[in-house]
Amino acid sequence: MESSIIGYSRGDLSAKTFQAFNPRTGKNLSANYAHASEDDVSRACDLAKNSALELAQLDGKSKGIFLRTLASGIEEIIDDLVVTMMAETGLPEPRVRAEAGRTSGQLRMFAELVEEGSWVDARIDLGQADRQPLPKPDLRSMLRPIGPVAVFCASNFPLAFSVAGGDSASAWAAGCPVLVKAHHAHPGTALLIGQKVVESLKACNWPEGSFSLLFGDGRTIGKSLVEHPAIKAVGFTGSRTGGRALFDLASKRPEPIPVFAEMSSINPIFVFSGMSTKQTEEFASGLLGSATLGVGQFCTNPGVVFHPGGEWGDHFAKLYSRMMQEISASPMLHDGILSAYENGLNSLSSCEGVKSLHRASSKEIVEGSFAGTCVMQTNARDFLADEAMMEEVFGPSTLLVSYESQEEMQKLAKVLEGQLTVSLFGKDIDLKKYGELVAILETKAGRLLFNQFPTGVEVCPSIVHGGPYPSTSDSRSTSVGTGAIFRFSRPVCFQGFPNDWLPDELKDENPLALRRSEG
Amino acid sequence: MESSIIGYSRGDLSAKTFQAFNPRTGKNLSANYAHASEDDVSRACDLAKNSALELAQLDGKSKGIFLRTLASGIEEIIDDLVVTMMAETGLPEPRVRAEAGRTSGQLRMFAELVEEGSWVDARIDLGQADRQPLPKPDLRSMLRPIGPVAVFCASNFPLAFSVAGGDSASAWAAGCPVLVKAHHAHPGTALLIGQKVVESLKACNWPEGSFSLLFGDGRTIGKSLVEHPAIKAVGFTGSRTGGRALFDLASKRPEPIPVFAEMSSINPIFVFSGMSTKQTEEFASGLLGSATLGVGQFCTNPGVVFHPGGEWGDHFAKLYSRMMQEISASPMLHDGILSAYENGLNSLSSCEGVKSLHRASSKEIVEGSFAGTCVMQTNARDFLADEAMMEEVFGPSTLLVSYESQEEMQKLAKVLEGQLTVSLFGKDIDLKKYGELVAILETKAGRLLFNQFPTGVEVCPSIVHGGPYPSTSDSRSTSVGTGAIFRFSRPVCFQGFPNDWLPDELKDENPLALRRSEG
Repeated sequence: MESSIIGYSRGDLSAKTFQAFNPRTGKNLSANYAHASEDDVSRACDLAKNSALELAQLDGKSKGIFLRTLASGIEEIIDDLVVTMMAETGLPEPRVRAEAGRTSGQLRMFAELVEEGSWVDARIDLGQADRQPLPKPDLRSMLRPIGPVAVFCASNFPLAFSVAGGDSASAWAAGCPVLVKAHHAHPGTALLIGQKVVESLKACNWPEGSFSLLFGDGRTIGKSLVEHPAIKAVGFTGSRTGGRALFDLASKRPEPIPVFAEMSSINPIFVFSGMSTKQTEEFASGLLGSATLGVGQFCTNPGVVFHPGGEWGDHFAKLYSRMMQEISASPMLHDGILSAYENGLNSLSSCEGVKSLHRASSKEIVEGSFAGTCVMQTNARDFLADEAMMEEVFGPSTLLVSYESQEEMQKLAKVLEGQLTVSLFGKDIDLKKYGELVAILETKAGRLLFNQFPTGVEVCPSIVHGGPYPSTSDSRSTSVGTGAIFRFSRPVCFQGFPNDWLPDELKDENPLALRRSEG
Repeated sequence: MESSIIGYSRGDLSAKTFQAFNPRTGKNLSANYAHASEDDVSRACDLAKNSALELAQLDGKSKGIFLRTLASGIEEIIDDLVVTMMAETGLPEPRVRAEAGRTSGQLRMFAELVEEGSWVDARIDLGQADRQPLPKPDLRSMLRPIGPVAVFCASNFPLAFSVAGGDSASAWAAGCPVLVKAHHAHPGTALLIGQKVVESLKACNWPEGSFSLLFGDGRTIGKSLVEHPAIKAVGFTGSRTGGRALFDLASKRPEPIPVFAEMSSINPIFVFSGMSTKQTEEFASGLLGSATLGVGQFCTNPGVVFHPGGEWGDHFAKLYSRMMQEISASPMLHDGILSAYENGLNSLSSCEGVKSLHRASSKEIVEGSFAGTCVMQTNARDFLADEAMMEEVFGPSTLLVSYESQEEMQKLAKVLEGQLTVSLFGKDIDLKKYGELVAILETKAGRLLFNQFPTGVEVCPSIVHGGPYPSTSDSRSTSVGTGAIFRFSRPVCFQGFPNDWLPDELKDENPLALRRSEG
C-alpha cells in the first residue's frame, strides 16, 4: 500500500484506501493508496510553515537549480510515466510524452525567469535628505513569496497541472513551499512525480516541508488544507463546483487567503459571416480538431459556436455533424467525467429549441469510460432565453447557435459569463465593423483569438490563461505562463535599510543586473 | 438640501437626511444631505456599466488630461476646502492644505504613469510559422481595466483617500468608472470635490457614469453597491469590521469580486537594545511625533513598542510618558472615532498585566470630540498571553511592551497578525544578529522600516501600503503609490490579431515607445 508523502517521510497507512481506474478497461488498477490522515495534513502544513522562512531566503540561482533538476528528473522517468499514466487515464502515449515535455518545459521556463530575476519588479526611490518641506526617505520594494501554497491536481492534466505542474512550478519559483493534493484518478502518476520532487529537493538541499503530496478524498482533505492557518494561497484547476467550494472555504477563514481556481469556460467562437466552400471546410475541420482534442477534456475546448443562420449556416452545420460522426468514441479520464458529460448533454438536449444533429452513444462500448461525440443546434433567440445552455459541457461536443443579425450577435456577447477564451472568425475588416462587439467580448475573456482555435495553449510570457468568473475565481491572474508567479508573491517595501543588508535585488550596485525602476 | 451625484445629474431628495458634525464644537453643521435611494444606487451602477466600454478605449494621454484637470481643479478650490474640511473634521489648516497637495500630487502621479504607458506590462511573443512540431502563434498581452470600481471614503483622509483620492485616481488611471460612497463625517468636503470631478469629466468629454457620489448609510448603501452585478472591484479604507463585512459580501456574490480593504494595523516597533541618553531622547521624541500625528488617526500610527526591559526600558517608559503628558487633547475626526478610542483604551487597561502610565481624560473638555493621549505598559509574557492586546486602538496612545530575551522577542514577532508596517530600531549590525527575527517580520508586514517611524507614507513607485490580513484583505496589493493601479486591471491576451487592429501598446512598431517584454 502507498501512503502520502509528508516532507521527507511517508504518511500514515490508514484503513481507508482507494485504487485508480483504467478508463480503457473499466477496471480498477491494483495499487492501493491510503487516504491521508488528519495528522498527515497537519504534519505537512507544519513542515511547510517551518520551511517557508528558509525557502524565502533562496536566491534565483538556487531556485533555478532545483527547478532544472526536477525537469531533468521527470525526463528520466518518462518510460515509467508512459506506462502508469496511460493505464490511469487512457490517454495515448504521444500525449503523455508531450505533456511530460510541457511539464519539464514549464519548470525550465520558471528556472530561467528566476535566474534572470527581474520578475521581482524591483523599485527603488532614493532618499533625498534635503527635500523640502520634509526629507524623502529611501524606499525600495520587490516581490517576495506569499507563503505555503496548496495545489490541487487537475484531472485533465496529470502532469502539466498536477504534482510538478504550472501551479507548483510557479509557487516554488516564487519561493513558496507547495502542498499538493493528488487527483484520485491518477495517484500512481502523482507518486512517480512526487518521488522525483523529493529526490530533487534533497539533491539541492532544500528544507524538508518544501513539498508534500497528499492522497485521498478532495472534499475532506481539501477542506483541512484550505482551512489550515499555515496555508497562504491555493491553486486549483477543475470543476466550477469544486473551485467555488474551495474559494468559499478560503474566504470564510479568520484570515482569508486568495484562491486561484481555474474552473469553467465554454470558450465561445463567433463567426462573423459566411465563408467560401474551401474556408468552410477548413473551419469545420479546425473546429473538429479543437473540439475533440484529448476527448474534449481541455479547459479551452470550444463548446459553443455562434454563426450566421441561413443557407451557409445550414450547410456548415451539416458538414460539421457529418465530420463529427466519423470520430470514434474514446476513453475519458475517468467515469466521473463521463457521467458529467452525459448528464450535461442530457440537460442541453432537454432545453427548449435544442436539436441534436448527431449524438454517438457513449454506451455502445460496455467496458471503460468511452465518450462519443455530439453536435447540437439551436438559434440565438432560444439560447438567450435559457441560461442552462451557457453551462460548460466538458467533453467532445459542440453546440451550434445561429444568429440572424449583428444586434443578436451583440446580445449573445452581452449575456456571456466570463471565459478563458473567445475566438473570432472573419476578415480583418470585420474587426472594425464589429468593434463594439469585440470591446464587449474583451470584458468577458482572458484571451481573444482571431481566426484561430483556443486549444493548444502556448506556454510563454504573454499567455493569459485566466479570465472573469466563472472561468477563474480571479480575473487578475493567469495560471499558465511566467505571469503565474505573481499569484504567489506580494510586494514588500524596505525603508531606510543599510545598503549591504538589502537583498541583492535592491542594492545600489544592482549586482544581479536586473531591470529595475529607479527614481 | 444636497443629494447624491449620479452621473451628470443629482440624486433623489429622499426623506432621510443627515448632517455633519463639528468635532471642535460638538455641534452638528447646518447643511443637510439626503441619503441615496435604491434608485440612485442602481442608476449610478447602470451608468457606470454603460460608460465602462468607452472608458476602456481611452488612451493614456486622454486619461492623463482628465487626471491633471482634476488635480488643478482641486487646487482652485483649496480655500473652500479649508473652510469646509476644517469644520467637518477639526483638522488644522496646514493639514488640509498638505492633504489637498498630496491628493493633487497623486492624481498627477497617475497621470504621468498612464501618459508614459509602460505600466500595462506589454508582453509580446512573436509567432513562428516554421516551429516544430507545431507553429507558434503570435501572442500579445497587456493590462486592461477591470470594470466599475466602488470606492469607500476613509474617515481619516477626507481628501487623499476619499472622493478623488488614491483609490479613485488609480481606478480612473486604469480606465475604470468610479462609484464613491461618501463618508458621513465629511459630506461637504466630498461634495466640493465631487462637483470638481464632474466639471473635469465634462471638460474632458468623458462619458456620463465615469463617476457618481453617493451619500448615506455605509451599511445599506455599501451592501447595495458591493452586491450590484455592475461593480467589479472595491476599494476601502476603514475599520476591520467594515472592511471584513464588505469582503464577505463580495465573496458571497454569484460572481465574487476582489475587495481591497485597508483595515487595521498596530504597526509595532521593535527596539533591539538600549540606547545612549541622547538617542533615547531622540527616539522618544520621534515616537511621540509619530504616535500623536493627526491625533493618532493614521493607519500607520505606531501603537505598540517592543523594547528591552530593565533599567533602560524603565527610563524610556518614564521619559516617554512624561512627554506624552505634555500633549494637550485634540479633536478626533468624529465622535464615533472618539468612543472607539475610549473603548479600546478601556479594554486594553483591563487586560491582565497592563498598567496605565499616563491617561489624559478625554472628557475634560465637555464640548467636541477631544481625545487625550495615553501610555500603557506591560511585559512580553502578559502580552503573549492575551490576544486582546494585539487589537488596534485607533488614536494617540502607545502600548509599551518590555521583553527579557531574544527568544521572547522572536515569540512576539511570531504571534503578530499582519501589519502595514513594522519598524526596527538598532544598529546596522543588529540586522544580522537578529536575522531570523527580521525574516519572520517580513512575512508579517508590507513595509519594514529601519530607524524610522512609520507615519508620513511617501507616495512613490516603491511604496507598499498594504500587508497580510488584517492590515489589508489582500496582501498582494498596495493602496498607495503607482502599484495601486494593478488592483483595478487584469491581463488580456490577443492571439493572431492583425497588427493594425492591435492596441498601440502592442503594435509591432511600438508607437508609444513603451518598455515591453518581447520574445
